[in-house]
Amino acid sequence: MSSKIKVAVLGATGYSGLELSKILLRHPRVEPVFVRRENGKSSAASLAEQFPGLSGNGSHSLLPFSWDALAQEKVEILFLATPHEVSRALAPEAVERGLRVVDLSGAWRLKHAAHRAVYNFTDHDPAKAASFDRHAVYGLPELNRDRIAAAKLVANPGCYATSVILALAPLVSAGLVDRQRGIVSDSKSGVSGAGKEPTARTHFVSVADNLSAYSVFGHRHTGEMLEQLNLHSSELIFTPHLLPIPRGILSTVYLHLSHPASPEQIEARYREFYAAARWVRTFATPQLPQIQFSLHSNYCDIGFALDEDSHRLIVVSCLDNLLKGAAGQAVQNMNLMYGWKEDEGLN
Amino acid sequence: MSSKIKVAVLGATGYSGLELSKILLRHPRVEPVFVRRENGKSSAASLAEQFPGLSGNGSHSLLPFSWDALAQEKVEILFLATPHEVSRALAPEAVERGLRVVDLSGAWRLKHAAHRAVYNFTDHDPAKAASFDRHAVYGLPELNRDRIAAAKLVANPGCYATSVILALAPLVSAGLVDRQRGIVSDSKSGVSGAGKEPTARTHFVSVADNLSAYSVFGHRHTGEMLEQLNLHSSELIFTPHLLPIPRGILSTVYLHLSHPASPEQIEARYREFYAAARWVRTFATPQLPQIQFSLHSNYCDIGFALDEDSHRLIVVSCLDNLLKGAAGQAVQNMNLMYGWKEDEGLN
Amino acid sequence: MSSKIKVAVLGATGYSGLELSKILLRHPRVEPVFVRRENGKSSAASLAEQFPGLSGNGSHSLLPFSWDALAQEKVEILFLATPHEVSRALAPEAVERGLRVVDLSGAWRLKHAAHRAVYNFTDHDPAKAASFDRHAVYGLPELNRDRIAAAKLVANPGCYATSVILALAPLVSAGLVDRQRGIVSDSKSGVSGAGKEPTARTHFVSVADNLSAYSVFGHRHTGEMLEQLNLHSSELIFTPHLLPIPRGILSTVYLHLSHPASPEQIEARYREFYAAARWVRTFATPQLPQIQFSLHSNYCDIGFALDEDSHRLIVVSCLDNLLKGAAGQAVQNMNLMYGWKEDEGLN
Amino acid sequence: MSSKIKVAVLGATGYSGLELSKILLRHPRVEPVFVRRENGKSSAASLAEQFPGLSGNGSHSLLPFSWDALAQEKVEILFLATPHEVSRALAPEAVERGLRVVDLSGAWRLKHAAHRAVYNFTDHDPAKAASFDRHAVYGLPELNRDRIAAAKLVANPGCYATSVILALAPLVSAGLVDRQRGIVSDSKSGVSGAGKEPTARTHFVSVADNLSAYSVFGHRHTGEMLEQLNLHSSELIFTPHLLPIPRGILSTVYLHLSHPASPEQIEARYREFYAAARWVRTFATPQLPQIQFSLHSNYCDIGFALDEDSHRLIVVSCLDNLLKGAAGQAVQNMNLMYGWKEDEGLN
Repeated sequence: MSSKIKVAVLGATGYSGLELSKILLRHPRVEPVFVRRENGKSSAASLAEQFPGLSGNGSHSLLPFSWDALAQEKVEILFLATPHEVSRALAPEAVERGLRVVDLSGAWRLKHAAHRAVYNFTDHDPAKAASFDRHAVYGLPELNRDRIAAAKLVANPGCYATSVILALAPLVSAGLVDRQRGIVSDSKSGVSGAGKEPTARTHFVSVADNLSAYSVFGHRHTGEMLEQLNLHSSELIFTPHLLPIPRGILSTVYLHLSHPASPEQIEARYREFYAAARWVRTFATPQLPQIQFSLHSNYCDIGFALDEDSHRLIVVSCLDNLLKGAAGQAVQNMNLMYGWKEDEGLN
Repeated sequence: MSSKIKVAVLGATGYSGLELSKILLRHPRVEPVFVRRENGKSSAASLAEQFPGLSGNGSHSLLPFSWDALAQEKVEILFLATPHEVSRALAPEAVERGLRVVDLSGAWRLKHAAHRAVYNFTDHDPAKAASFDRHAVYGLPELNRDRIAAAKLVANPGCYATSVILALAPLVSAGLVDRQRGIVSDSKSGVSGAGKEPTARTHFVSVADNLSAYSVFGHRHTGEMLEQLNLHSSELIFTPHLLPIPRGILSTVYLHLSHPASPEQIEARYREFYAAARWVRTFATPQLPQIQFSLHSNYCDIGFALDEDSHRLIVVSCLDNLLKGAAGQAVQNMNLMYGWKEDEGLN
Repeated sequence: MSSKIKVAVLGATGYSGLELSKILLRHPRVEPVFVRRENGKSSAASLAEQFPGLSGNGSHSLLPFSWDALAQEKVEILFLATPHEVSRALAPEAVERGLRVVDLSGAWRLKHAAHRAVYNFTDHDPAKAASFDRHAVYGLPELNRDRIAAAKLVANPGCYATSVILALAPLVSAGLVDRQRGIVSDSKSGVSGAGKEPTARTHFVSVADNLSAYSVFGHRHTGEMLEQLNLHSSELIFTPHLLPIPRGILSTVYLHLSHPASPEQIEARYREFYAAARWVRTFATPQLPQIQFSLHSNYCDIGFALDEDSHRLIVVSCLDNLLKGAAGQAVQNMNLMYGWKEDEGLN
Repeated sequence: MSSKIKVAVLGATGYSGLELSKILLRHPRVEPVFVRRENGKSSAASLAEQFPGLSGNGSHSLLPFSWDALAQEKVEILFLATPHEVSRALAPEAVERGLRVVDLSGAWRLKHAAHRAVYNFTDHDPAKAASFDRHAVYGLPELNRDRIAAAKLVANPGCYATSVILALAPLVSAGLVDRQRGIVSDSKSGVSGAGKEPTARTHFVSVADNLSAYSVFGHRHTGEMLEQLNLHSSELIFTPHLLPIPRGILSTVYLHLSHPASPEQIEARYREFYAAARWVRTFATPQLPQIQFSLHSNYCDIGFALDEDSHRLIVVSCLDNLLKGAAGQAVQNMNLMYGWKEDEGLN
């Protein structure tokens, strides 16, 4: 169909990029173009060459990246599934050349310089970078639907950040959380979240039959959570763990209510907050989500348990880190940017 | 060697019982006898018949259980790796017949009736049961070494309880924990902790590629933690999760210090508290234990991370739920009861 | 859309039934109805109640099964994802009542009584059963496309059988196999192939970190392979193994060529034989399929390696046992029965 | 104890080297010294630094390798757990300096130049290398017990080779196998067999939920099998597969008997052949070994199934690739070299 929008994916051979490519290939309103960097890790000529599982419906060529190539292909929107340094360099130029950008890296998510410090960005043009820092929209549709629709540059959220923010936003925004007593998010993720680079840490023998905490008091996604939830750093602990599974995140979030509430009231608050949210499922107590429930889907599932006596609340949220935590959410953002239904291409 | 002590295991075909049997078979000071209940789940005539991996050094007959059989075999100490109802019925009689007992179930761990309520014990002779409730010794050597040595009935701790109590005891006992703000233990266990009974929940397809929280605000091991740490129920949240691995526990414990301390001070406190503990390893920050480190060993590994500004502390403890969390600890208790070295048979 | 065909699934709560239900729910040409047997294992009122992961697009009621209910719903085609005894009883009546049937069990796959013996069928009306045995069509589209299109009763193939038959059919049918020297299929399957019943064998702890061969010289799917390939039982050994993964089959098939051939000739033979096959992918040597490539798809992937000197050939075939090995193939068969494109609903 | 033999391990930080170190640390008759190459992959100062799970009984220093250091430590026997090029260079010099050597690499296993070609050895002194090729003893105790006892240089067998040779030797040596019809060994191994190097292939996400065949018609261990079993290359196909488990090998071996035999006769042949073998367990039909049975032990387990009509036999053998397939067998060889009991240090 000639009316399809041309979209480009740079970084299609990483885990998120591959999932993104799969979604775009079956999205009814777009025609994807796959590009790769000259000095990138893969030199495959096509996606099917790199991922034999993708063959069967064509080979899906990987074109060398250039602005001219994108222009020639009449690409309107560029997905960057690239390391954050690359996104930091390419996104401004893409926007200046008239492209809309959805960036899946951590390059443009953070508003506060203090939070960005953890990335050690070295921008060639700091003033321009600062301007894009200001205008980039944090691409969490459930919080920023309208601003995403109008955005030139969408910073697609981190996988952990999505799971924690969606678990907490309804309660924090309603003043239901006793911030003084502190919130704990104990989060667990499958290995694809650690990226495709083979390391001692991602070796099968290191991960299988194991569990480990990492980046304690120092994970990069923490800044996103604090900014989007308007929390002070002393009010939230976020601890990630590496699970012996390929994909999926479960966050167990602990908090004290600021004033008494019943389970029905808690559930009602979630349902109200997510009334328009196509991709959040609220579970009625006592049912809690499990990682399997949302695997291979774009859902974020949320359930909770309340200890009425002590006003302690445990919220459990689950999502597929490669979908709602990355590629699925990126497509959801594109859908909003083009005024399409939020689940177009995602069912 | 004729000077070996005769020990009996009832319930050798469960996961903990099997590990216990393996240890006892190579323990230099004991000669194990394996007994099974008439109406138990297994009718195998030998351990090797049930577990072909155990063959190669004899078949290890499974005798039908009777008090006469134990007497005839001159058994001195009886390990009960049985459901708690069975332990509840057998332990008092065993003690009255002159046997010493190490019970691996939850039957005799709890001192407070309120905590025991979760088990719904139905004792034939409530007065006698109450007496044994009082005299049973909680078999955590690192806390109760002397009382275990003298005990007739040792209640071997729960696997989760061991991991949480050992993580917290040095700090709580030193008044270092701000109890008001609450402690969270987010714990994760391999599937053998759920027992050998095949259920929808332990089916491979239910567990693999999954993670789930369970027994939220209601796990049976919580009472042990509260009693041994002298905490009020509102001061501790314990949430277990089911990991897609066969064995191993990792507990991530969150707390606020009651007054400022340095990492060195925290580490020193652990090293002091566990100076005599053969089976606890304290890790120097920033190293944290992982499940693999203590797997197939009797160690409980403990590490921590401190956020000095906020006085927030994260303690990570790991152990093998079938060893330090069950069978290994049971043998450690036996070693204390006979005045042997704490690591006899466990290296 | 009123022009959608009404289809019913009996047994939607098993592994194959669930996958089938998911496909039918998004199939553009059908409207599925889910029915359950009174005395079946599940008493859930809806699919979403049983599988929370299915919620989000309605609850998908489970109606009690009755012929009247199917008639009232104007169901045209009935999928039986039921134990073979149930299929044996229900399929003839369904056909007599004017329904078309795709049966996913082993009830109607075998033509030779000797092969059927392994199932121990006890038919109430042996003459009628014999008639249906004769008229049932083995639902492997790549072999029996035309007969499936016209069939009243389609016997959906076994998962292992699909993987072995598709690996061998092009060679055997061309006389390329030295049958005298014997064919070996060493096959490996994920645990969902063993069904949803929790047993000692499907317990996570029994499967994880393990591999085992089973049903050696006696697996029920062997008869299907012999019949469809026209082999004598002495010409094929089929040995299944239980893999520690949830789903997926890989068969490694060993044979001697009856006369010399080059890799190019072998590949050409596969490409010719499967020229019209939408769901078979032939790999060019030296690339071999892996289980991951076809997971969550309806593809059967086939690759091979040839030792030219010795005329020995190894064929590797992979498929997802719940899709091409069960539910996906069932829908492929339905597509043929209605003259739709073979991949309708399956992309 | 001063009478302990000093042994050295070079390469203690690889998977096999670590297992070897663990065994030697608890072996009652030796005192291990751990050495590392200057330009090796690890620069850890101790084993415990590299493997926190090894701490608790000392740190086990890693000394820089030099011949002087070995001499000073009065080392008598050197274990090489090194890449084969390193072993190729070091073993002759070690022997010339009066050390006995057990080499765990593929450097010295093969007698026929044609089989060695796959390794592409580049020897500085080809004449000397050829001499050591001739005198090195293939360290499979069940075949070469006496020659190992007297050997200066023991070439410890490959893990796959051990599983296949032990499965076949009793039958081939008795003339029970119809070699003309060909033998197939379909073997499957856990990931530790692929080494500790992080690669795309050993990444958790590549291995989990997957199975793949590799090195088809070309695995390096094939030469060992042919030489030890006196088979022609056309008489044996060996195909390895990568299992999603950390350790363990299962080989399914297919053959035709050269003349009729009963299961009892087959079993008797195995029991006779392995009458003196401490570390081979023969299973009575119909029981077959599983990977879990021999995991973490030095056993090779063997079982079989016979189709009496067709004289087809399937032999299944299992072992732990890091123990009987590597480190355990190395210690078993050392025990023979010193005249100790074959299971010393291995129970």
